[in-house]
Amino acid sequence: MKKYSLFQNKRISDYTVRRLSMYLRTLNFLEQSGVETVSSEEIAKIEGFTSAQVRKDLSYFGSFGRRGLGYNVTALRKRISIILGLNRKWNISLIGAVPLNGIGGALLNYEEFKKKRLTITKIFDKDPKIVGTKIKGITVRHIDELERKIDPRKEPIAILTVPPQDVQSIINRLDKIGVKGVLYFASRTISIPKKMIVRNEDTVMELEALTYHIANKTKRQLKTLK
Amino acid sequence: MKKYSLFQNKRISDYTVRRLSMYLRTLNFLEQSGVETVSSEEIAKIEGFTSAQVRKDLSYFGSFGRRGLGYNVTALRKRISIILGLNRKWNISLIGAVPLNGIGGALLNYEEFKKKRLTITKIFDKDPKIVGTKIKGITVRHIDELERKIDPRKEPIAILTVPPQDVQSIINRLDKIGVKGVLYFASRTISIPKKMIVRNEDTVMELEALTYHIANKTKRQLKTLK
Repeated sequence: MKKYSLFQNKRISDYTVRRLSMYLRTLNFLEQSGVETVSSEEIAKIEGFTSAQVRKDLSYFGSFGRRGLGYNVTALRKRISIILGLNRKWNISLIGAVPLNGIGGALLNYEEFKKKRLTITKIFDKDPKIVGTKIKGITVRHIDELERKIDPRKEPIAILTVPPQDVQSIINRLDKIGVKGVLYFASRTISIPKKMIVRNEDTVMELEALTYHIANKTKRQLKTLK
Repeated sequence: MKKYSLFQNKRISDYTVRRLSMYLRTLNFLEQSGVETVSSEEIAKIEGFTSAQVRKDLSYFGSFGRRGLGYNVTALRKRISIILGLNRKWNISLIGAVPLNGIGGALLNYEEFKKKRLTITKIFDKDPKIVGTKIKGITVRHIDELERKIDPRKEPIAILTVPPQDVQSIINRLDKIGVKGVLYFASRTISIPKKMIVRNEDTVMELEALTYHIANKTKRQLKTLK
């Protein structure tokens, strides 16, 4: 197998990274289903991209496949895992809103994390009823203590499930101690610190993408009916 | 105020729709904070876009602002709400995985939905322990019944919190009865029916965007240190 350098990746766009994640989950699925080789055309068909796009994405990282033979599913899955940094364990701090009927609780129960070696190892909240108790074997600490309890070399990633109004101040605090990546769930635009990578999952925004398309399609259909 | 047509929107990209959602949540925040007018420069700064981008996005829908005066926050918020289809109530079917420690439970408790008039009105599961019981006043129906119980004119949107292996078959069933939009949470690429708009929220994928950037940045820093 050809050697390749991760430093080539520097200029890869977020969209490419997202597509790599999509390839990875499809390759996981194919591998579990016992499929041994796959062509760029097949991957393209599954993902709804062009095969030229797939070949271009994979070519960033050296030559994976062999013309006519396709890609070895396991080898390609492993290679993309390494590119995405998944060849190591990632400890994650979960901050805020741990009541088990909320998103924090759902994340603590999320099976997919285990498969990817993404592990919630610290939990913070400010509810005195749960601070000091154990959830999934982890003692819940008060949010005031996060600077003392998070070691960014050990826990480089934090997931924030705090209310919208608290996201910015907690991200600023995490930036100060050197936490490198944050995923937050609140429906709020924030100012992103320079050294930090921040992602946002906003279910309302995803639903608005649906309501936008449905509302406008409906209008168009009504117009046609007149 | 100038009249505008929703039919202009036909060729708006998904990225523009996403930015409109971001403007909307920022405008909501500004309105709640008592801010009355805002310039495209201020919106751009908050969102991290260029002001040219903001002006371009908003110009799709006719002229909102007045040079030098900026935009009226409430008027702009209302206009974008209408564009996104949020001037009406949206009923949503929640399908699968309703145990309250999962994502389905979190969605049922999600306050942001109420503000946007997004309402979960039907719940389906296949666990005999909860089928027939009431959750938040809604009787849980068996997934086998969804064709009979969902009226796509009343519930045009469905949220799927079923396991990955069930997503495709349920999307196909929803497509057959005419459900127009689906948001699913499983980490799985699916084949999207032609008439349907489908969105996916995949927390693992968001975390992989972090691990990718952190893993590669770390390598680069190490190289510099050598």
